[in-house]
Amino acid sequence: MVISDTSQFGPGQPAITYGLRGISYFELRLTGPKQDLHSGTFGGAVSNPANALCRMLAALIDDRGRVQVPGFYDDVAKLTDEERKQFEALHFDEAGFAAQIGVAALRGEEGFSTLERRWTRPTFDINGLWSGYQGEGAKTVLPARAGAKFSFRLVPHQDPAKIGAALQQMLERLCPPGVKIELIDFHGAPGIVVPPDSPYVSAAKRAIESGFGRPPVMIREGGSIPVVATFKRLLGVDTLLLGWGLDDDNTHSPNEKFHLADFHRGIKASAHLWNELAQLSKR
Amino acid sequence: MVISDTSQFGPGQPAITYGLRGISYFELRLTGPKQDLHSGTFGGAVSNPANALCRMLAALIDDRGRVQVPGFYDDVAKLTDEERKQFEALHFDEAGFAAQIGVAALRGEEGFSTLERRWTRPTFDINGLWSGYQGEGAKTVLPARAGAKFSFRLVPHQDPAKIGAALQQMLERLCPPGVKIELIDFHGAPGIVVPPDSPYVSAAKRAIESGFGRPPVMIREGGSIPVVATFKRLLGVDTLLLGWGLDDDNTHSPNEKFHLADFHRGIKASAHLWNELAQLSKR
Repeated sequence: MVISDTSQFGPGQPAITYGLRGISYFELRLTGPKQDLHSGTFGGAVSNPANALCRMLAALIDDRGRVQVPGFYDDVAKLTDEERKQFEALHFDEAGFAAQIGVAALRGEEGFSTLERRWTRPTFDINGLWSGYQGEGAKTVLPARAGAKFSFRLVPHQDPAKIGAALQQMLERLCPPGVKIELIDFHGAPGIVVPPDSPYVSAAKRAIESGFGRPPVMIREGGSIPVVATFKRLLGVDTLLLGWGLDDDNTHSPNEKFHLADFHRGIKASAHLWNELAQLSKR
Repeated sequence: MVISDTSQFGPGQPAITYGLRGISYFELRLTGPKQDLHSGTFGGAVSNPANALCRMLAALIDDRGRVQVPGFYDDVAKLTDEERKQFEALHFDEAGFAAQIGVAALRGEEGFSTLERRWTRPTFDINGLWSGYQGEGAKTVLPARAGAKFSFRLVPHQDPAKIGAALQQMLERLCPPGVKIELIDFHGAPGIVVPPDSPYVSAAKRAIESGFGRPPVMIREGGSIPVVATFKRLLGVDTLLLGWGLDDDNTHSPNEKFHLADFHRGIKASAHLWNELAQLSKR
């Protein structure tokens, strides 16, 4: 299989992606009183679902960036010294990366570099939050409901089903009296790593060098392409992840773009690839 | 001064309110990356403002219902044994109250009854929360911004300005690298207690008995009427808080109501009050 849904390592530096993170995506809904209440008359008497939501979500990760769901790290594939060195050799521009996304400082799980954290370590990120009054000015409501969307990025060999079950138990334990919870499991996919030294990867390296005028580097990617695991499970085949995008494409974000020059170089590399794969099947 | 903005103790049981809680109301805005990011490509590399918001808000109160802002309880007027006994004698129907607002259990600061918590103890309640994607289904964004509205109900003699300053310092300390915070102080008012044994209160008791056919009980109220403190400070006068509402009026909430019979009884009691006050000024 060949999928072009990944990125180059940087402008003019094509890449083959040999690992992806998986994902477990949830929505959590909390219900307290039957309707919004006056926070003066009722404040202090009943659990506030918005307070409870923040307490529960804050408990899922500590201030060192470690996820607190029981057993979460049990099956995490360890980063090898070889891969650490390989990532270091890419000379990732942390300052340029921070400037590109507009933050004063990068931050994540302690003990790992930014590339290691993005490519090989699991995460917990809140994707959406809502409760009570969101308009201009002040309203003194004690909200009846609160909710959040959140997801864990997973790495090989974490099991989304096992994590979902441990999460449900943990949230039930954290939920205060007078609040009901509903946890919706939207989708889960395991993280994957494909063999970086197969004849197919070699063929792809040659095709990319023909299309981009420069050999690719071997990288991993923090995003998830769930069908890659499905192809492996149902068809028994690995997938070549040959993507032509850039990190500043604003993927899945407002003002998404795709550089035209990369579109053309990608077309060329793809054409060369079929030729390379045809040569391979002749051998 | 006379203000009718409080409630009876229950249906058919009028009350004079001799204490109100104050309030400090804030909006907190967190800004991280310059725009929403893909949570796969960037997750683990930067502070997530929604994660940071939940962590900061969760840190403001512990799981025993105690506010964690430094110095928050320093000036809190202690509940006297006499008042505790007086509240107990009201035989507040906790089960009926829980059923009215539709919760399986009441909950608040440990060590106090529900009436004590509503009338004499300060609170922290989130009034609104927002971040990222709030629509149907799943979007894997790492949000650029997150925000909340929240308020503390205050009791005599807590100082809103002092609490606001301590809060600002605490939030700055809790804010992770790569996130900027803005704290907006909407409004503050101190809690108040008026003397329950003045000739004005005696006059009001007689007027209420004439209007409602039953003498009032002496209660406090969890809500805030900031102008009461202003009248005291600028005019040097106390305020009679004579209200005709009921706890299930859904005040400041959807489907607010006011019972017509109480409207008429309140009119009568108000008319009697002017007569009683006129008698008082003759003495």
